[in-house]
Amino acid sequence: MDSIAAKLDELGITLPAPLAPVAAYVPAVEVGGFLYVSGQVSFADGKFITGRLGETVSLDEGIAAARACGLLLLAQAKAALGSLDRVERVVKLGAFIASTNDFTDQPKVANGASELMVAAFGEAGRHTRSAVGVPVLPLGVALEIDAVFAIRTA
Amino acid sequence: MDSIAAKLDELGITLPAPLAPVAAYVPAVEVGGFLYVSGQVSFADGKFITGRLGETVSLDEGIAAARACGLLLLAQAKAALGSLDRVERVVKLGAFIASTNDFTDQPKVANGASELMVAAFGEAGRHTRSAVGVPVLPLGVALEIDAVFAIRTA
Amino acid sequence: MDSIAAKLDELGITLPAPLAPVAAYVPAVEVGGFLYVSGQVSFADGKFITGRLGETVSLDEGIAAARACGLLLLAQAKAALGSLDRVERVVKLGAFIASTNDFTDQPKVANGASELMVAAFGEAGRHTRSAVGVPVLPLGVALEIDAVFAIRTA
Repeated sequence: MDSIAAKLDELGITLPAPLAPVAAYVPAVEVGGFLYVSGQVSFADGKFITGRLGETVSLDEGIAAARACGLLLLAQAKAALGSLDRVERVVKLGAFIASTNDFTDQPKVANGASELMVAAFGEAGRHTRSAVGVPVLPLGVALEIDAVFAIRTA
Repeated sequence: MDSIAAKLDELGITLPAPLAPVAAYVPAVEVGGFLYVSGQVSFADGKFITGRLGETVSLDEGIAAARACGLLLLAQAKAALGSLDRVERVVKLGAFIASTNDFTDQPKVANGASELMVAAFGEAGRHTRSAVGVPVLPLGVALEIDAVFAIRTA
Repeated sequence: MDSIAAKLDELGITLPAPLAPVAAYVPAVEVGGFLYVSGQVSFADGKFITGRLGETVSLDEGIAAARACGLLLLAQAKAALGSLDRVERVVKLGAFIASTNDFTDQPKVANGASELMVAAFGEAGRHTRSAVGVPVLPLGVALEIDAVFAIRTA
């Protein structure tokens, strides 16, 4: 078993099946030592996590939704790379959080994905991030997060 | 004629003149094997496509606006590279779509740009993407899309 | 003194102390010839610049807030690289601007950061950019801007 797979196993983390893109793009592109992963929406246990922070989605539900996005990012990276052991560094997460006009805890919400990356990769999981509020996301989901990873050449 | 130019010609696609940036930045930067292109706003036939999806802009108009952004991205890439044949891969599109709070078809809208990339470059046009709703964009346009391309060294 | 440090000094620009991330991520990651810097929020003179363009934040205040984000981006880059002389090129700024639904001057606002980059680095400071309106940002700040720099290997 790969070391990151073993680590996830030890943490009791099971990666979901990667989602098929809902439109005319691909989940991941590897080029020039980087893996770009398309924005992954909040989806868990077979259904989309919808709604807005500050309204129908609580802070804890938002954190769980961010973690769900993070799991899907890892699932897409694994599907693209064969093994997460090829990840040299998590470089960047871009977090878009459906928010009412007065919800300002986007950083706490996005931590649901950020902490997953550190749990999975340790130091190599420490990444840069932007986290912003948006009024609405595809399919009415609560979160969308995209990612850039640095990759060891195979 | 370059092969991508020939392909666009065959598809009946004419690239617009690249727009000058509306502010203190440049349309494209090539570095380290990548070409970054600044966010291109929806502009066609000499005027900005303004408004919001879910309100004054229909789904079909939104798709056309996304295609207009895609054409401008290609026009900027061509101006920066000399020839689109230097594009090794379309890596990432970041689509920002002016939306009412209840419009959730951002993926269908962004396909207007995504499908153009695949039409122009074939397999090399298959890219990663994020697509999110925003309340408002520069000059009141309906869409803004930025891009990252991987480039063959000259 | 490094040349960029001397240039900033000559311009009367003092970099602020870099801010600690407000959550589980890091300010900057250098990899593969690039430095990614996390979204920096508008903060100056010891306090966050909060509010929305088109409402409680004037155009001039927005431009100043963008410049404050730019100064923090430079402060983070300097802390990560040791010297800003290692910056080969400012590649991309991603500007998120808290806006009312009818405020459409995001490009003028973001220029506060863009012009700082050109002042600091000259030609190497000319970058690509996206600038979009968002309803709300972390801690209620007016702006968040992230960046990608190309870096000379040490």
